[in-house]
Amino acid sequence: MTRKIGIIGDGHVGATVANYIVVNGLVDDLVMIDKNEAKVNADAIDFREGMPNLPFHTNITVNDYDALKDADIVISALGKIKLSNNDSDNRFAELSFNIDQVKEVAPKIRDSGFNGILIAITNPVDVITQLYQQITGLPKKHVIGTGTLLDSARMKQAVGEKLGIDSRSVTGYNLGEHGNSQFTAWSTVRALDQPITELAKSRNLDLDALDQAARYGGFTVMQGKGYTSYGIASAAVRLAKTVLSDARTVLPVSNYRSDYGVYFSYPVVVGRDGIIEDVPLDLTDEEKDKLQASADFIKKNIEKYGEK
Amino acid sequence: MTRKIGIIGDGHVGATVANYIVVNGLVDDLVMIDKNEAKVNADAIDFREGMPNLPFHTNITVNDYDALKDADIVISALGKIKLSNNDSDNRFAELSFNIDQVKEVAPKIRDSGFNGILIAITNPVDVITQLYQQITGLPKKHVIGTGTLLDSARMKQAVGEKLGIDSRSVTGYNLGEHGNSQFTAWSTVRALDQPITELAKSRNLDLDALDQAARYGGFTVMQGKGYTSYGIASAAVRLAKTVLSDARTVLPVSNYRSDYGVYFSYPVVVGRDGIIEDVPLDLTDEEKDKLQASADFIKKNIEKYGEK
Amino acid sequence: MTRKIGIIGDGHVGATVANYIVVNGLVDDLVMIDKNEAKVNADAIDFREGMPNLPFHTNITVNDYDALKDADIVISALGKIKLSNNDSDNRFAELSFNIDQVKEVAPKIRDSGFNGILIAITNPVDVITQLYQQITGLPKKHVIGTGTLLDSARMKQAVGEKLGIDSRSVTGYNLGEHGNSQFTAWSTVRALDQPITELAKSRNLDLDALDQAARYGGFTVMQGKGYTSYGIASAAVRLAKTVLSDARTVLPVSNYRSDYGVYFSYPVVVGRDGIIEDVPLDLTDEEKDKLQASADFIKKNIEKYGEK
Amino acid sequence: MTRKIGIIGDGHVGATVANYIVVNGLVDDLVMIDKNEAKVNADAIDFREGMPNLPFHTNITVNDYDALKDADIVISALGKIKLSNNDSDNRFAELSFNIDQVKEVAPKIRDSGFNGILIAITNPVDVITQLYQQITGLPKKHVIGTGTLLDSARMKQAVGEKLGIDSRSVTGYNLGEHGNSQFTAWSTVRALDQPITELAKSRNLDLDALDQAARYGGFTVMQGKGYTSYGIASAAVRLAKTVLSDARTVLPVSNYRSDYGVYFSYPVVVGRDGIIEDVPLDLTDEEKDKLQASADFIKKNIEKYGEK
Repeated sequence: MTRKIGIIGDGHVGATVANYIVVNGLVDDLVMIDKNEAKVNADAIDFREGMPNLPFHTNITVNDYDALKDADIVISALGKIKLSNNDSDNRFAELSFNIDQVKEVAPKIRDSGFNGILIAITNPVDVITQLYQQITGLPKKHVIGTGTLLDSARMKQAVGEKLGIDSRSVTGYNLGEHGNSQFTAWSTVRALDQPITELAKSRNLDLDALDQAARYGGFTVMQGKGYTSYGIASAAVRLAKTVLSDARTVLPVSNYRSDYGVYFSYPVVVGRDGIIEDVPLDLTDEEKDKLQASADFIKKNIEKYGEK
Repeated sequence: MTRKIGIIGDGHVGATVANYIVVNGLVDDLVMIDKNEAKVNADAIDFREGMPNLPFHTNITVNDYDALKDADIVISALGKIKLSNNDSDNRFAELSFNIDQVKEVAPKIRDSGFNGILIAITNPVDVITQLYQQITGLPKKHVIGTGTLLDSARMKQAVGEKLGIDSRSVTGYNLGEHGNSQFTAWSTVRALDQPITELAKSRNLDLDALDQAARYGGFTVMQGKGYTSYGIASAAVRLAKTVLSDARTVLPVSNYRSDYGVYFSYPVVVGRDGIIEDVPLDLTDEEKDKLQASADFIKKNIEKYGEK
Repeated sequence: MTRKIGIIGDGHVGATVANYIVVNGLVDDLVMIDKNEAKVNADAIDFREGMPNLPFHTNITVNDYDALKDADIVISALGKIKLSNNDSDNRFAELSFNIDQVKEVAPKIRDSGFNGILIAITNPVDVITQLYQQITGLPKKHVIGTGTLLDSARMKQAVGEKLGIDSRSVTGYNLGEHGNSQFTAWSTVRALDQPITELAKSRNLDLDALDQAARYGGFTVMQGKGYTSYGIASAAVRLAKTVLSDARTVLPVSNYRSDYGVYFSYPVVVGRDGIIEDVPLDLTDEEKDKLQASADFIKKNIEKYGEK
Repeated sequence: MTRKIGIIGDGHVGATVANYIVVNGLVDDLVMIDKNEAKVNADAIDFREGMPNLPFHTNITVNDYDALKDADIVISALGKIKLSNNDSDNRFAELSFNIDQVKEVAPKIRDSGFNGILIAITNPVDVITQLYQQITGLPKKHVIGTGTLLDSARMKQAVGEKLGIDSRSVTGYNLGEHGNSQFTAWSTVRALDQPITELAKSRNLDLDALDQAARYGGFTVMQGKGYTSYGIASAAVRLAKTVLSDARTVLPVSNYRSDYGVYFSYPVVVGRDGIIEDVPLDLTDEEKDKLQASADFIKKNIEKYGEK
């Protein structure tokens, strides 16, 4: 009864997801969990003090894993962003800290009796999503990573801005690892009723430049404020809404690819039962190679960090 | 044509106001201004990268004062929070830095040709609101501070929680300076169809304890996360929506009190023409004294820091 | 899991409630039920054809009582409006047809295994609400009529318009039967921080005229278009949202009054568990008499038409 | 300042558009105009009586053409639906009555000084849109018909339902006259990252059957309830939101095609300046023939009924 979402991790991303949810009245019950008791309590109080001036009511529970038992969705937004000088553009730099956190948190989610859809934002998201699935034992189709839903949005934004059109009028996907090895599958991208590869000729577009914009968008934001939040929160909330309303939307999210044995992003139909159906793409050979390389990179890490 | 809001200051509060606006599609054009170019550009990019996954479109312009010319509303969210050990609960500790900022920003707003409603969040908000009015030369009724709209929400939240009812079902006002000298005018507070003073007897409520909760709520949040954002953002957006839609809602906001010669919070009818009408209260003598003391405190500061 | 509402009756009111819900994405699953198969199917198709241009997805099921089993809320909007010349202002004129309908529908709701909150809009709403409770056997606190939530809104609108302020800034209640015997309890009405009885003197308000506006508002709409829809739909959806989000808002709705042995409207705290708490009013003797008369009128009809 | 929309015609469609707008708080000022004074006043009162229970405020003005002067958008929803036995599936059956109405209304819109975007829903929409443009003298790019935005939605709904996916994950267009001569340009339709023509083979889809579903969807609704409302209202409001927020979305709407000399539906980029840019399609020869036939049909009628 009623919509209930749990958010694990109340940092920049988790708090922004919570804010989006609260000011839209998207759920009835919100469970916020963070090891930093003072921070998560402060945010909960701050939200509650907004209620008298908000048109929607949300019940907020803090740091109670038991409350996740009947949640529709749990969103993992925990994690530290660690950027050393040497690998500032590498989400795997975030791995060691986050992996330990997930190994601590995932059993608690499992033990709560939670039986809904788990959405992972925590980076490196593909490895983390697989780890959550392994530890919680939830069906693979019920554990989903936001993956390249954000990268695809960045690509659409870059293409839309270049063409002077709504980014929502651009279709197509970024694929693979949500990290350095992800790539725009240009063969899937279309705008103005044409393949982007055709438009590139007639409009003199530099796809490599657009690709860079899509890949490094997040790092521009990172350098400007030290973290990213709004883009990823919008992606996560959209994914959550798609699940809640069983919309069966085609979205590029991190899902388990049985042919590769790892999670990575590839378009699928998403609904209340999680990953409903695969959407096969007709990729070019070059794109297939990139995808394989991306999968291999994830595989190497999941073998290193995943559950044995 | 279309709804346009400008936000000056892209710190915790300004960015949270922007986020609320963007994820609700509340305006068509959003102008974000901050001296920290990298930060405000990062937030704008981050918002734009959320667009493909958001149901609403918002055009975002960065650091262009000229774009404020035809804005409906400009919200001042600039300011530094400075808490020394000695006066950690004193919003006037924020004064010296913020006052300088406002003196730099207000002439630019004025020179843009802006002719809408200016909403100040920046603390100490009563002094700052008056300063904005003095520098911009906008009509007094068109320059409004969020004032005790937040404190009143905190009071309603505290009372509602105590009674186990919706904070929106509690009516009444906190008055005076949005700072230490503000107070809950208990004679105006009602819940469950009774004056709170009556309820206090039958339900054994400790009004002083509730008053402390209302007054120090923000500081609990401050200690937990170092700033407040969601409660104040909700108050500011509600005020902005009230103005845009000309709702003529009775709200306790900082408005110019000609009988005292300063801005402080007192309920008024708010609409598209700003402060539409005064709402006289039948305060107790003790409340009148508190209000006078609060006004005197502001007056002292406006004489010190205001425009001569 | 997820928000689910069933609407019984797809006439002007039921369809307007559905429209409000769909264009706001308020629920995930909507069950629409009507004996007029062609009409309810037409509306469902029409809604679905709106989906590609709507930002929210809603799953719509038609004429399946079994689908109500796990609904959070069922709204009864069925009923015929029958206005003879002789009793054009009497909601009891609608009784005979509607009573038969409810006796047909209520067992089906019960047999579905529905165990949520039942909200009745169908007139004469107080009698109908009681009838639903008797037939379904749901706890009394889980069966609620919209009652004078609409009449109170009409009163607030009338007062707000007269004073030039937001109707949301007017507090107070209309009580009793949602019908001719309902009345504005002026002793509970406040605006501009004063009892309306005081304001009436200083502002020269004619409370009788405002009472007429509140009582006959619906009939003005009736005469203009033959039915009422938007006001009542807003009341019903607000009530439903209050239940879903467990907001514990004080609302004047039709609830079982054990001291009178019938349902009629009186303010209560509304939440996920239905009627949470009574809100005693300090009525004048005249108001108490009116309430007794209103209760007596309902009692007479419930004895005549209710379950024996 | 602020968002303002005028709706001409308060029948099923106009009132549904108004309801969508009001319950979402999409505009600040709504102007409702209809020759049936009693009906339009009833709806306005009914909306206002909903306000106290709605989270958003909307100012409603009735039957005041002068109020359109500073409107952002005027939506023409007037018109009678006339279905004789002989041409029950022909929107041109609605022509004679509606054409007279538009000739009466358009000069009043023009004389109000209105200078925004005019959106026509009134059928036969392509002829009516052109007529509005001719009479008001507004720039051609500022007068837009909803056209096949609805037919395209019907096609997407039919395809999505067949494939078990979100209709929003289907792309492509219905083109030409919003009437019997409109057609699905299957060469533009894609789902699951494939052209529908390919999917048709692998999934054994009958495109003709889907085409019938798209073409006659409205008539199924018509037969069930005597009119259509929700689908078309969603299309119109989406178009209006796209204009207000300058989203520059690619939409198939009725726009002036200089190469044909008439208005008909073809995808264009839509923004605050109306029709921003053409989106050329690579149609098959058969589709080109259908488009020509559709254009010829409209041309014949615009020559007969348009301004000389």
